[in-house]
Amino acid sequence: MAAPLRIGMVGLGTVGTGVARILLEHAQRTADRAGRRIELVRVAVRNVAKARAEITKAIEITTDPMKVATATDVDVVVELIGGLNPAREIVTAALESGKDVVTANKALLCNYGDDLFALARRKERSISFEAAVAGGVPIIAAIGQAMTGNQITSLAAIVNGTSNFILTRMFHENSSYEDAVKEAQRLGYAEADPSMDVKGTDAAQKLGLLTQLAFGRRVLPEQFPVQGIDELSLMDLKFADELGYAIKLLATAKLVGGHLELHTQPTLIRHSRPLAQVNGPYNMIELTGDAVGKAWFSAMGAGQMATASAVVADLVDVAVGRARINFERLHLWAEQETFPLQRIEKIQRRYYMRFLVEDRPHVIADIADILGRNGISLSSVIQKEANEPEEANVPTTPVVPLVFMTHMTTEGAVRAARTELDKLSAVRMPWLCLPVSG
Amino acid sequence: MAAPLRIGMVGLGTVGTGVARILLEHAQRTADRAGRRIELVRVAVRNVAKARAEITKAIEITTDPMKVATATDVDVVVELIGGLNPAREIVTAALESGKDVVTANKALLCNYGDDLFALARRKERSISFEAAVAGGVPIIAAIGQAMTGNQITSLAAIVNGTSNFILTRMFHENSSYEDAVKEAQRLGYAEADPSMDVKGTDAAQKLGLLTQLAFGRRVLPEQFPVQGIDELSLMDLKFADELGYAIKLLATAKLVGGHLELHTQPTLIRHSRPLAQVNGPYNMIELTGDAVGKAWFSAMGAGQMATASAVVADLVDVAVGRARINFERLHLWAEQETFPLQRIEKIQRRYYMRFLVEDRPHVIADIADILGRNGISLSSVIQKEANEPEEANVPTTPVVPLVFMTHMTTEGAVRAARTELDKLSAVRMPWLCLPVSG
Ligand SMILES: NC(=O)c1ccc[n+]([C@@H]2O[C@H](COP(=O)([O-])OP(=O)(O)OC[C@H]3O[C@@H](n4cnc5c(N)ncnc54)[C@H](OP(=O)(O)O)[C@@H]3O)[C@@H](O)[C@H]2O)c1
Ligand SMILES: NC(=O)c1ccc[n+]([C@@H]2O[C@H](COP(=O)([O-])OP(=O)(O)OC[C@H]3O[C@@H](n4cnc5c(N)ncnc54)[C@H](OP(=O)(O)O)[C@@H]3O)[C@@H](O)[C@H]2O)c1
Repeated sequence: MAAPLRIGMVGLGTVGTGVARILLEHAQRTADRAGRRIELVRVAVRNVAKARAEITKAIEITTDPMKVATATDVDVVVELIGGLNPAREIVTAALESGKDVVTANKALLCNYGDDLFALARRKERSISFEAAVAGGVPIIAAIGQAMTGNQITSLAAIVNGTSNFILTRMFHENSSYEDAVKEAQRLGYAEADPSMDVKGTDAAQKLGLLTQLAFGRRVLPEQFPVQGIDELSLMDLKFADELGYAIKLLATAKLVGGHLELHTQPTLIRHSRPLAQVNGPYNMIELTGDAVGKAWFSAMGAGQMATASAVVADLVDVAVGRARINFERLHLWAEQETFPLQRIEKIQRRYYMRFLVEDRPHVIADIADILGRNGISLSSVIQKEANEPEEANVPTTPVVPLVFMTHMTTEGAVRAARTELDKLSAVRMPWLCLPVSG
Repeated sequence: MAAPLRIGMVGLGTVGTGVARILLEHAQRTADRAGRRIELVRVAVRNVAKARAEITKAIEITTDPMKVATATDVDVVVELIGGLNPAREIVTAALESGKDVVTANKALLCNYGDDLFALARRKERSISFEAAVAGGVPIIAAIGQAMTGNQITSLAAIVNGTSNFILTRMFHENSSYEDAVKEAQRLGYAEADPSMDVKGTDAAQKLGLLTQLAFGRRVLPEQFPVQGIDELSLMDLKFADELGYAIKLLATAKLVGGHLELHTQPTLIRHSRPLAQVNGPYNMIELTGDAVGKAWFSAMGAGQMATASAVVADLVDVAVGRARINFERLHLWAEQETFPLQRIEKIQRRYYMRFLVEDRPHVIADIADILGRNGISLSSVIQKEANEPEEANVPTTPVVPLVFMTHMTTEGAVRAARTELDKLSAVRMPWLCLPVSG
């Protein structure tokens, strides 16, 4: 058997502990698959005092991550501390000193991917990051290896498990958005400050990475529509259901007439599509290739062991020599600007628009008129009767939901209409506008 | 750029033509991904006279496959003729003369895999066969690479697109089994003689291959229950639906108490599971790993371009050097006999039993009594009223369907009960017994 592959791990938190458990508890099994032992030889943490004896009793532990990154007895550095700094310095030092790198840090790649990838190429080393997007779903391998016979023509993904959990919970438990967030926090699916997840930022960053892999083009979240699930309420999930759709936080990129169109938005998806049926904290990526047609990949997008599974797969790839080949063939951060980006205004879709309006004459007509003048035609309308005010002597104007489904139109038309609609006094702000997929 | 990879293709039928189209029409794109050109240099067919000018005008074409298999200007032989002979001789000759092999031929691997794999290892060459199981689904890569951090604990797969198409068609179009088969034949999803597909043989062979990959154990179809969809009728799909299940031809292998339990049978699957929602000619494989949990992979399981996509991915793997690494690490046809096979009689499951019985007193009691004495307890019963005979003066005994769902029991108990049930004069033969999944 070949010499052991020696691992230096920076960070022994949720994911790090999972990786260590697999490497220690299943050392023989892992060695069988890798053709050599994969040995955890050094670990860096912030606080050595934390109890983790089962893992660190036989391993050199330090609070100096640079020591691990540059140690001469380490072949691969696994970066699992998260955040931008010192993660960037650690990965840079590891590559500089000739080590391969495995990381689960999406934020790091989004921000400093160019430099780090270029450095790795100069040093003829690899960076593997299967765990950074969609945790347990082997989507980097799927795009980089399984789809090589295809031009990927579209990608539609549920890559934020927190948002998907919240939406599923709201719909199935008739729960408010706020209660569903609390439940997600209680179960450890959402952080104390859930904004990265619920505002779509996390999913948009992942879409950026997937788009680079699938279409060879670097895109930043400011270049496409990003909208969170925090604007939704239970009634929207129910209206959509009535119309035949589920609402999911969908990250999509597709080729339309040679242009690349992207969005990360809560999106109406027909019940019959597999993406509509992904529930709870799961992720799914739907790829369309010009040869294979549609393909779906699904698993847990986060969580200790699902993420650790992806990190260990990357380590085995390093051990057997696949990681360098994969990395060399990845067209990430390549210079080529293959497909021009569609201007946001020109993106064409159907839309779901939900207003809360004061129940007085002409409101529907006023809204429909604005939409019509902006070239937006309607395919269906749902108007529910106002509930009778509980005490008839309270002189409030009842507010009722009003839902429009549009025919195909452009984001530009919708934005123009929005400026006018926002001025209608009978419409409560904010009103909701979501795209419809496919 | 490295030297071109020179392809000799044996067979230019459905799949071969698809592969040739990708290689010829997308030569530059493929070269970008492979880091070198992938050139089709020789082709063997049975009948040179068939018109295929667009592909063969620039390529040496022959009716002697051995010439392609041994040509000195060929690096990789792609075997796409199907069947056992001369496919076996061709692959053997190719390996003997130092070529890597790519094949889509499941039957060949099931029958001669041991010898061919051993030969490839001796010659330090690779055999790649992503297209042989589940066409466009990259399941060989998923098991061999993405799951290396896991012990796979179960595998449940829809791998026969023809059967899945027929079952979907029956259910959604209220069609008889016979009509659905005809429709599948008309659309090219089923062959003139569909028995390999509808009797479960094809799915059982694929399960054999997947089991070897996932559990390192060679299993033959005679060692586990194999049942086709040709015993089903529309009413079974409807009864199952009423009970909350879809029926799919499911190929499963799972570890139960250290034993490996397999079956390929039409199986009741709860509506909420992703496997229950796979419709038409699609395939899906659900893997459970001890780290990642459940993961799903789905795409078209056959068809010209989906299958060609998998073959080209294999060719790119050969071109970049991944194929040899993958092949070397595959634990297929290894000597180790990791998990003992569960004896068929001891397999534990719940069952759906549907009888057509003469509508006379005591029939339910007689059946329930036999089941009870064999230790099979019931969780639910559906009995529909008999339709009034159309002409009251015809003295036939009406036949009514009777459905039982059992609690957990063993295949042994069911087989013992069957012997007795088959003797009941009020029960029409054959009656149907299907397992319930999970
Ligand atoms: N959790 C998931 O489900 C998941 C899923 C996909 C990707 N990821 C990514 O995986 C990475 C790790 O996430 P996690 O959830 O495991 O984080 P975590 O639980 O917060 O663990 C972070 C670890 O890094 C250590 N650390 C932090 N700063 C350090 C420093 N300056 N020097 C040395 N050690 C330091 C901490 O030490 P102490 O233990 O001493 O505090 C801790 O062990 C992140 O990039 C995250 O985005 C996580
Ligand atoms: N079709 C699918 O969707 C699919 C999916 C997955 C896997 N596969 C597998 O892929 C393989 C090929 O399937 P296919 O559907 O492409 O078959 P096909 O359409 O019947 O094509 C077979 C090709 O092989 C040639 N051929 C047959 N015997 C030959 C011989 N002795 N010498 C030289 N050439 C010979 C035929 O020549 P002529 O053209 O001159 O007759 C034809 O070009 C099979 O192993 C099949 O199981 C197929």
